[in-house]
Amino acid sequence: MSVLIVGSTALDSIKTPHAEVSRLLGGSASHAAVAASFFAPVKMVGVVGDDFPRKYVTLYKKHGIDLTGLQIQTGKTFHWAGEYEVNLNNRRTLLTELGVFEKFTPHLPDPYKQSPFVLLANIAPSLQHHVLDQMDRPKFVVADTMDLWLNIALEELLRLLPRIDGFVLNDSEAHQLTQEDNAFAAMTKLHELGPKYVIIKQGSHGSILSGPKGCFICPAYPLPKVVDPTGAGDSFVGGLMGYLSTSRGGIDANIRRAMIYGSVVASYCCEGFGLQRTTRVKRADIEKRVRELQRLTRF
Amino acid sequence: MSVLIVGSTALDSIKTPHAEVSRLLGGSASHAAVAASFFAPVKMVGVVGDDFPRKYVTLYKKHGIDLTGLQIQTGKTFHWAGEYEVNLNNRRTLLTELGVFEKFTPHLPDPYKQSPFVLLANIAPSLQHHVLDQMDRPKFVVADTMDLWLNIALEELLRLLPRIDGFVLNDSEAHQLTQEDNAFAAMTKLHELGPKYVIIKQGSHGSILSGPKGCFICPAYPLPKVVDPTGAGDSFVGGLMGYLSTSRGGIDANIRRAMIYGSVVASYCCEGFGLQRTTRVKRADIEKRVRELQRLTRF
Repeated sequence: MSVLIVGSTALDSIKTPHAEVSRLLGGSASHAAVAASFFAPVKMVGVVGDDFPRKYVTLYKKHGIDLTGLQIQTGKTFHWAGEYEVNLNNRRTLLTELGVFEKFTPHLPDPYKQSPFVLLANIAPSLQHHVLDQMDRPKFVVADTMDLWLNIALEELLRLLPRIDGFVLNDSEAHQLTQEDNAFAAMTKLHELGPKYVIIKQGSHGSILSGPKGCFICPAYPLPKVVDPTGAGDSFVGGLMGYLSTSRGGIDANIRRAMIYGSVVASYCCEGFGLQRTTRVKRADIEKRVRELQRLTRF
Repeated sequence: MSVLIVGSTALDSIKTPHAEVSRLLGGSASHAAVAASFFAPVKMVGVVGDDFPRKYVTLYKKHGIDLTGLQIQTGKTFHWAGEYEVNLNNRRTLLTELGVFEKFTPHLPDPYKQSPFVLLANIAPSLQHHVLDQMDRPKFVVADTMDLWLNIALEELLRLLPRIDGFVLNDSEAHQLTQEDNAFAAMTKLHELGPKYVIIKQGSHGSILSGPKGCFICPAYPLPKVVDPTGAGDSFVGGLMGYLSTSRGGIDANIRRAMIYGSVVASYCCEGFGLQRTTRVKRADIEKRVRELQRLTRF
């Protein structure tokens, strides 16, 4: 079964204490789509400008990503520049040039509308709504978000939550949305807002799930060196949805392993700038780290 | 096999945003000894003043703790007062009255000297050395520490590390000691300082082990409500050493489960002020949460 992924497609310029890179392929949809592509056919929706480098189209295609829904418009591709602090936990945005992304409206090509699995990657909640409005009874819808939307589009986000099955956010966003410092208490409140499945991302500490079958504590794959965490959260949820869409049995039977696979793809993402490491990953590399995570958590 | 535990014995006055308690039994040795007592006979070394409430002696005895090594001196028992911020992650010390603890020298009664398992709970490194000087070839020695000793007794701490088997510290201490932000990179550097086993405590995120058989990611038991985290780290390492000392087979075969048991005892510690919750725990309660942790991490 295929996964529909809608989100941002961008060029990222990233500065860390150790290096600096310019205009690498980025954006929530790009990271999530490449991550999902290791497991399932992916249909992507996004927008780029006419300056979008040809090589990145090639990269998407190398991963078998269906680009029927990728709009190429006159103007500039969304460009984001950011800088990380020494510990790579905090980052600040240096520059946001929205370009063609400013007026982006996600139009779904007809064959996309029956996709059973839908990932509304990080993007304005109004656009996430617009995607759902076009869908024909999807089986499982997950939405990611970011603090920006809690600040400027809270009402639309709150209206979205009853429409989705799974909600993915990080711990500071969970705190901001619920006023709960405790992640497990926050998950209870987040369920009350609609979603049956709540996943809180905790960076290098992994993630936690609350769902109909209880909670799951999902470890992060241990990395002694992180090069660039940009896109790790998108890779996590992309890998999760990719794995889930190809698993036999229900959501509950597979969502834990799906999170583990997402966690592993996210670990590769962190080992290079942008998608540089992820795009060189083979399915066998992923399976190796999944087995390692099993060994690392067994008691 | 018995566990020898040396550390502080104190009266704690604790303020959280929700409540305030006065002069509860506390100190690293008290928490660790009670935690270990669920699994093994414990011999404790510490010092209290002649104001030490009788009821706390009764509490130790209820847990079968051997108090031959508990010195009762003329003067006041160590009194610590602290206040937690709303999220219970940050605390500040309001008051430290060392009392008889100021001149504490841990003397080991003869029967203590053959204890195979030794926990040097949080206490000045010079005193931890003094305990080891009196020991007769212990099988497994673990030391805990705190930021205070990194600041004022670093040299003695660094001299201690080659003398112990396992070193337990929290993530900010690991960072301070190694200048590594990344916990897994920090563990590599900590091994170079001596200990074969390094455990980094990460609060509500659990803990991680690095040892001869690789790493282990140990979850914290999820608590939707934390009442008072004071002593959780001591309970963790106490439970760990108690469990380890009664397990058949080598350290490597048991240390992961020992961490899980420590993690569970620490979770109970957090559910009440001081030792109020821990001391009401039954072994069956512990086994229940261990089984739950298994369910919470299985994939």
